[in-house]
Amino acid sequence: MSSKKIPVSILGATGSVGQRFIELLIDHPWFEVAELAASDRSAGKKYSEATNWIMQTPLPEKFANMIVKKCEPNHDSKIVFSGLDASVAGEIESEFAKNGYYVISNARNHRFDEDVPLMISEVNPDHLELLKSQNYKGGIVTNPNCSTIGMVLALKPLHDAFGIESVNVVTMQAVSGGGYPGVPSLDIIDNVVPFIGGEENKMETEPLKILGRLSSNKIDNARIVISAQCNRVAVIDGHLETVQVKFKSKPSKENIIKVWNEFKSLPQELNLPSAPIQPIKYFYEDKYPQPKIHRNIDKGMAASVGRLRECPIFDYKFVVLSHNTIRGAAGGTILIAELMKAKGYMD
Amino acid sequence: MSSKKIPVSILGATGSVGQRFIELLIDHPWFEVAELAASDRSAGKKYSEATNWIMQTPLPEKFANMIVKKCEPNHDSKIVFSGLDASVAGEIESEFAKNGYYVISNARNHRFDEDVPLMISEVNPDHLELLKSQNYKGGIVTNPNCSTIGMVLALKPLHDAFGIESVNVVTMQAVSGGGYPGVPSLDIIDNVVPFIGGEENKMETEPLKILGRLSSNKIDNARIVISAQCNRVAVIDGHLETVQVKFKSKPSKENIIKVWNEFKSLPQELNLPSAPIQPIKYFYEDKYPQPKIHRNIDKGMAASVGRLRECPIFDYKFVVLSHNTIRGAAGGTILIAELMKAKGYMD
Amino acid sequence: MSSKKIPVSILGATGSVGQRFIELLIDHPWFEVAELAASDRSAGKKYSEATNWIMQTPLPEKFANMIVKKCEPNHDSKIVFSGLDASVAGEIESEFAKNGYYVISNARNHRFDEDVPLMISEVNPDHLELLKSQNYKGGIVTNPNCSTIGMVLALKPLHDAFGIESVNVVTMQAVSGGGYPGVPSLDIIDNVVPFIGGEENKMETEPLKILGRLSSNKIDNARIVISAQCNRVAVIDGHLETVQVKFKSKPSKENIIKVWNEFKSLPQELNLPSAPIQPIKYFYEDKYPQPKIHRNIDKGMAASVGRLRECPIFDYKFVVLSHNTIRGAAGGTILIAELMKAKGYMD
Amino acid sequence: MSSKKIPVSILGATGSVGQRFIELLIDHPWFEVAELAASDRSAGKKYSEATNWIMQTPLPEKFANMIVKKCEPNHDSKIVFSGLDASVAGEIESEFAKNGYYVISNARNHRFDEDVPLMISEVNPDHLELLKSQNYKGGIVTNPNCSTIGMVLALKPLHDAFGIESVNVVTMQAVSGGGYPGVPSLDIIDNVVPFIGGEENKMETEPLKILGRLSSNKIDNARIVISAQCNRVAVIDGHLETVQVKFKSKPSKENIIKVWNEFKSLPQELNLPSAPIQPIKYFYEDKYPQPKIHRNIDKGMAASVGRLRECPIFDYKFVVLSHNTIRGAAGGTILIAELMKAKGYMD
Repeated sequence: MSSKKIPVSILGATGSVGQRFIELLIDHPWFEVAELAASDRSAGKKYSEATNWIMQTPLPEKFANMIVKKCEPNHDSKIVFSGLDASVAGEIESEFAKNGYYVISNARNHRFDEDVPLMISEVNPDHLELLKSQNYKGGIVTNPNCSTIGMVLALKPLHDAFGIESVNVVTMQAVSGGGYPGVPSLDIIDNVVPFIGGEENKMETEPLKILGRLSSNKIDNARIVISAQCNRVAVIDGHLETVQVKFKSKPSKENIIKVWNEFKSLPQELNLPSAPIQPIKYFYEDKYPQPKIHRNIDKGMAASVGRLRECPIFDYKFVVLSHNTIRGAAGGTILIAELMKAKGYMD
Repeated sequence: MSSKKIPVSILGATGSVGQRFIELLIDHPWFEVAELAASDRSAGKKYSEATNWIMQTPLPEKFANMIVKKCEPNHDSKIVFSGLDASVAGEIESEFAKNGYYVISNARNHRFDEDVPLMISEVNPDHLELLKSQNYKGGIVTNPNCSTIGMVLALKPLHDAFGIESVNVVTMQAVSGGGYPGVPSLDIIDNVVPFIGGEENKMETEPLKILGRLSSNKIDNARIVISAQCNRVAVIDGHLETVQVKFKSKPSKENIIKVWNEFKSLPQELNLPSAPIQPIKYFYEDKYPQPKIHRNIDKGMAASVGRLRECPIFDYKFVVLSHNTIRGAAGGTILIAELMKAKGYMD
Repeated sequence: MSSKKIPVSILGATGSVGQRFIELLIDHPWFEVAELAASDRSAGKKYSEATNWIMQTPLPEKFANMIVKKCEPNHDSKIVFSGLDASVAGEIESEFAKNGYYVISNARNHRFDEDVPLMISEVNPDHLELLKSQNYKGGIVTNPNCSTIGMVLALKPLHDAFGIESVNVVTMQAVSGGGYPGVPSLDIIDNVVPFIGGEENKMETEPLKILGRLSSNKIDNARIVISAQCNRVAVIDGHLETVQVKFKSKPSKENIIKVWNEFKSLPQELNLPSAPIQPIKYFYEDKYPQPKIHRNIDKGMAASVGRLRECPIFDYKFVVLSHNTIRGAAGGTILIAELMKAKGYMD
Repeated sequence: MSSKKIPVSILGATGSVGQRFIELLIDHPWFEVAELAASDRSAGKKYSEATNWIMQTPLPEKFANMIVKKCEPNHDSKIVFSGLDASVAGEIESEFAKNGYYVISNARNHRFDEDVPLMISEVNPDHLELLKSQNYKGGIVTNPNCSTIGMVLALKPLHDAFGIESVNVVTMQAVSGGGYPGVPSLDIIDNVVPFIGGEENKMETEPLKILGRLSSNKIDNARIVISAQCNRVAVIDGHLETVQVKFKSKPSKENIIKVWNEFKSLPQELNLPSAPIQPIKYFYEDKYPQPKIHRNIDKGMAASVGRLRECPIFDYKFVVLSHNTIRGAAGGTILIAELMKAKGYMD
């Protein structure tokens, strides 16, 4: 059975996103991790020696003993997951794509390339079409920033149903979003850091492309005004965000909740292995959602929303939570790969 | 020398605000703690046995051995600081005021009584005039909610200089704001709770009275639209708040910072013992202010601001931090008492 | 299929141990939660209203809507799991046992009753025999204290193989061990509390009964000297303990690790649903085990050990970790019930 | 007045110990920071740009604007405090000493040089005599490891009075002991790490030299058997340690407490500016001492002890707490410098 699985590579396998890729792919029904690659410093070592495993499940023996390769396009597997750091991802990913590999990347470098899809599988699966206009022998598809994904998941059905004019978001982001070693404990115990470099810009621009319309092989960006403020808090996993929305025409509270709870998209229709059964789940309790309790629901792939109420300035305000290294990184990227396979892009 | 000090009582002395009162009054140049009072359950016990001391400085012997009294208006000291819980504060404080005591309270119960000042000493010291219209033999003055104070301090000079139309605030509040035992550790380690009962309403209404104008012994509320979202985070002390403001006429960034840094008010002019030298301090570093680093500046009585930048939706966005149990509770209340003494209300 | 399951009750269902019982029994192959009972204050309410759910998986609808009963022996299910507080557990449990119920309890009250087994299913399964000498129509079996269990699991095979003379243990215990609301956040963020009431005494005495020998229906306590020091740290789940041991005859390091890794007992032979496959797992990395990474291995039912090294004072020192509310409470108790069923005590 | 102060240099000024040196020397009555030095990477920059200030008091302007120098022996100040990392400290400190500087170091490199004092000012002030046998034009004095200091302070008067045979210690150490960035937040939130590289060895060996006897210019090590186990917990500052002691002749509990509370030494007699008034303070409450509450008592320079009770294995067990970056690092080092000045070593 294992022999029928599609072999995949992980670039940046020793980092925190790379580790999450491994954890999520351990028992994957379609993909099998064939190669682990990382920086030259790690290459040649056993994986267990090259990494400081920080997942909450122990590292399986099989991966512990794999020898880490360099990030050079001589891998056997044609599907490559990239958890590379932005400082090196741009060039390496292009190199792989040129050499016929399909790179599904969590790095920011190619997100705004005109012919590269910036994808959330439930939101803009049609953007995969862009792959056809790429000049690579293979191709590149990108996953958005971890703080963008939960919010845009929650906004998508509202935008479709009621039209969104403006969005105000304030985030309380988990430390795992900063990678490993990442945020020093001296900076975050008994503290909040009201700044995450580059994050606010990503949240104000990425949604416009993701929610944009594909026409004649180009993305026509959505016309929404977004203001973002990003903070780091002492949470391990799970970005919590307070969101305020102004609509073109203001719906009722009940309608919004109905639209959220009923939202399904292509990954659900195709029954993709990593797809959440219910991508958006509304909680009626005032104190919910919370990172510790809700980040893992539906395999860590759902967005949890709550506290929907009228806003004296915007139309509504609410809270959204999603798992930043599953839905917001490795899991979201794997879901894109599943969608590509189901749509025949890997044949 | 000690004999010349004004004796004061603390109601609710065993709670977290009560403890902070004690800590701040240990070496106070004008006031001397003469009596500690708390619930009937604590009354009659030695203070050290009735309380679970959680301040970061050890409890002085002198207070450890004081016998806790009941909250009945038979105290010798005429000045009474109230850190009582809202479930009992309303009636007890009225009773004291009727019997000739001046109650300066941190509880919410009397904040919106028409003739009771809701005060931040630097913001609306003139509201003390309301005391004259009270029917009590003594009087009641109230301190606002801990999350209101830092924000209104930062807004006051901007409102005076440029006129504020609307304010959007999202808080990340310290656990000490929930009292003791207060927030269970199981709710907050590795977590954020996106709800604090009653808090958002306080933040949307209290500033209107505080920034209101006193005319013919009545407060004419400020006309500002405020939207608040309140969250609890794993911080011991210090409420961090992201604030967005729309002005009547948009000032330059430089002007805002200038107005903040130059802001002084009556407590500074009168050189009151607990008054911060600079009530609002702007930090230019992107990552500042932070609770752990800035909550204690200027005796924990200043508001720290930072990250002022233009906002695509409002005019500006920024971050404000203040110590919730010093500036936002016991310290702010003591400063009101100092102002009252300096203005002759205790003669 | 569900109709064939054995109905069980949970006493103290709203507390943190009660919640863990529910979580672990949701899909249990043998048992089905038929009744939830708690204090009179909770009785009559829907479970979701009577409890503040703090598990990291959301509360299933089915349980949310169950009506909480009083803790009176009029339940339909004859098997009763008790997560009651020690202040009430003693009498209530006796009452149930007198009325024909089998009470498997996590409370401390009956642990040292002469005819009540104090059980760790892998350590002293033969002690179940004591049930036969009980005067109850039903019976009582008790689970040890959460901090005792991990340590005794690790000691059991060593005691059998090499004979233990003395044990020195220092614990770093998770806040969930204090129940809910339990440890206030103000006591534990940025802090350690070097005291847990009654805990050291439990750790110094319970192991002697558990490791004791059953002969002619009485337990002959083990002759080991134990010294315990217990601390509370800012960890949600998982008690980490440093242990030092002096043996009757000092084994080699390799032998100890071999004995640990090969240890199996009756629950493993009987293949009980909650039994860990490998009750004790040794980790060779210096930095392991850690609560965050290892508490959940083998369904949270295994003890993780590491850092075995020679000790200048005792023979060896090592670190042991176990999940305090799974292995150390609800899970351990359920495993006892499984053992009782497999051995015919529920027929 | 400032002109009369002794100018001092800080090596490794950008690290966490370096920052603490600055904080403690801001208003020092005898010393004035004249030069800040750090790695070549920082040299030439303004201090505020070269460091990430993490102290809980803001960085004074004066230091923010100082230009960081290289760690080369061309400083004007002859007194040099070293907070250098052990990877470079050895050679740099020797170089300075050869060139006539007095280096008082917090690094481990020279601690076991035969002619270098390993000093706790209250414990072995006479070891300063060793300076006379050094071949340096200047000299080197070292401060012990942060986890050693609190324990040895508590042991010293007991050893003098009753004679100690063996000591068993388990630590729960603050993250600031790991420097900055140091311990990653992903490693310590909701976690304990039961390993700190090299720490246990330091705790088992350093006390023997410190408590050793100086005779004919050599240290005769104390004959005590020590076993140490070191853990990292989620605390910012303050190492808490459980200690067990076996005496040559077992004293009463009262005698131990008396000996602790009455302990004074040379720094107290000389009334040195950084000397705690009471070096060891005993707390009778079961739950004390705690890092958050007691680390700062007596300027962060005292050791707090508590929970003294008989031990079934050793004679007694107790808990000791001391501030690891004040008493255990920068503050302890400054106290040594004060002692050197008072004893004429800086004339």
